[in-house]
Amino acid sequence: MALSLANLSINQATLRQQCSLDQAITEISEAGIGGIGIWRDKLHETGVSQARRLIESAGLKVSGLCRGGMFTGEDPALADTLSASAVFEDNKRAVDEAAEVEAQCLVLVVGGLGPKSKALDVARTAVADGLQKILEYARNAGVVLAIEPLHPLYNADRSVVSTLGQALDLCDILGEGIGVAVDVYHTWWDPDLEQQIKRAGHDRLLAFHICDWLYTQRDPLLDRGMMGDGVIDLEKISCWVQDAGYSGQYEVEIFSKFDWWNRPAKDVLEMCASRYRECCPH
Amino acid sequence: MALSLANLSINQATLRQQCSLDQAITEISEAGIGGIGIWRDKLHETGVSQARRLIESAGLKVSGLCRGGMFTGEDPALADTLSASAVFEDNKRAVDEAAEVEAQCLVLVVGGLGPKSKALDVARTAVADGLQKILEYARNAGVVLAIEPLHPLYNADRSVVSTLGQALDLCDILGEGIGVAVDVYHTWWDPDLEQQIKRAGHDRLLAFHICDWLYTQRDPLLDRGMMGDGVIDLEKISCWVQDAGYSGQYEVEIFSKFDWWNRPAKDVLEMCASRYRECCPH
Repeated sequence: MALSLANLSINQATLRQQCSLDQAITEISEAGIGGIGIWRDKLHETGVSQARRLIESAGLKVSGLCRGGMFTGEDPALADTLSASAVFEDNKRAVDEAAEVEAQCLVLVVGGLGPKSKALDVARTAVADGLQKILEYARNAGVVLAIEPLHPLYNADRSVVSTLGQALDLCDILGEGIGVAVDVYHTWWDPDLEQQIKRAGHDRLLAFHICDWLYTQRDPLLDRGMMGDGVIDLEKISCWVQDAGYSGQYEVEIFSKFDWWNRPAKDVLEMCASRYRECCPH
Repeated sequence: MALSLANLSINQATLRQQCSLDQAITEISEAGIGGIGIWRDKLHETGVSQARRLIESAGLKVSGLCRGGMFTGEDPALADTLSASAVFEDNKRAVDEAAEVEAQCLVLVVGGLGPKSKALDVARTAVADGLQKILEYARNAGVVLAIEPLHPLYNADRSVVSTLGQALDLCDILGEGIGVAVDVYHTWWDPDLEQQIKRAGHDRLLAFHICDWLYTQRDPLLDRGMMGDGVIDLEKISCWVQDAGYSGQYEVEIFSKFDWWNRPAKDVLEMCASRYRECCPH
């Protein structure tokens, strides 16, 4: 008997070019998959209330909302640096949206240095300050925050938090209501990964993102691989995460402008399910 | 009065497309720069004895020879996996060459996973074993080995040693005669960098490579920036290295297929000298 897909979730980025949120909900649900990770731009297109109705009626769990953060005011998608108050306002909206769609967590990408700064310490202080401020708001809204350390490759433009250890150091300072999102693409290289996953434990492992790192990449951002097509030992990392007490869904997040974004959604989801069964321990 | 350039060295990779080793020695010497970092492929073209004569007559110091290592048998420049004994033979030749050109150190890039493996622990064990074996040979030859941790970006294809901390853990096990090459491009993002540079100290800081990380990169390998053109706080890292007791040269290593490789060697060297004076503390 084929394994249930209730514990599998598809991050919308995996179907970014094929599907609106409405379409993604339908496709994922029809594939028998249990969850969805939602992106805010797609959520705004559909409208939050409408999205909530569709998700409920499809019976999907929302494994995470992407994304809050960008506390340094530097977002590569924007032409300018945002003020701390503008960043805070946007994060409040993200928390409200996460509450409304009942996301398991709001995923935070903390922000990079930006093109004009060299001051990593200043950026990291801005991140700690921004986290503290939004955490209070999130606690009141009943939303759990998940810091997602990004690969050191993105230190300049997306995240000055590069390791799980760094993210957990922040969690230690901040206290209740905040944990981490572990993405194998960002963390697989880290010699300290097993130990930091243990350190995180059940209470702070809030999301687990899977895909693969292709040996030869055509783009540093948009050429992620399907599970099994690259060099990541997904079975081993999955075991570490499970042994540490993670009980949430496995969320597939594949940015793939050369390959998976150009295939029909049904085919992509079929492959996600098949590779999830092959590569992840159950 | 302009600051002396005796403490500046130019890694040949910076003039890769413009110069043979003979030409690089002439250009660097005429620019009043004190050192050169040599690559073995270029060294072989010129011949080791001839290279030695040219370097001596130009009065250059050899800040390092690039490179030994590749202990996993996986070198992206090769079509196949090398056996451990073939790797050992090549590393012995590298040690002999380093001795003959009186290099300050033999730089080691330890090797990546390769395209077909997922076993990071196996690869890391192969690295530790390979290092131990070649270290004995190097000690007898009077050559000092420098492990160069590479950016986590290269974990799959070039180096399963990604952080200075990892490299120093290996040094702790291996004992005398081995240290590290710190390249700002590979290490600047690391939240633990200052502490690990301190930990390395005078005896294990064997080489210091400088360049910059461009905010927008056109290639993950061959689009490094000139000092001052990117986001690395070179002054701060240089201070850490100096305060820890590093007394060697500052070696400029810029792989740049879109920019610096297409300019006359003289212009590149002039800019290296100028930016070294601007960006590095003296």
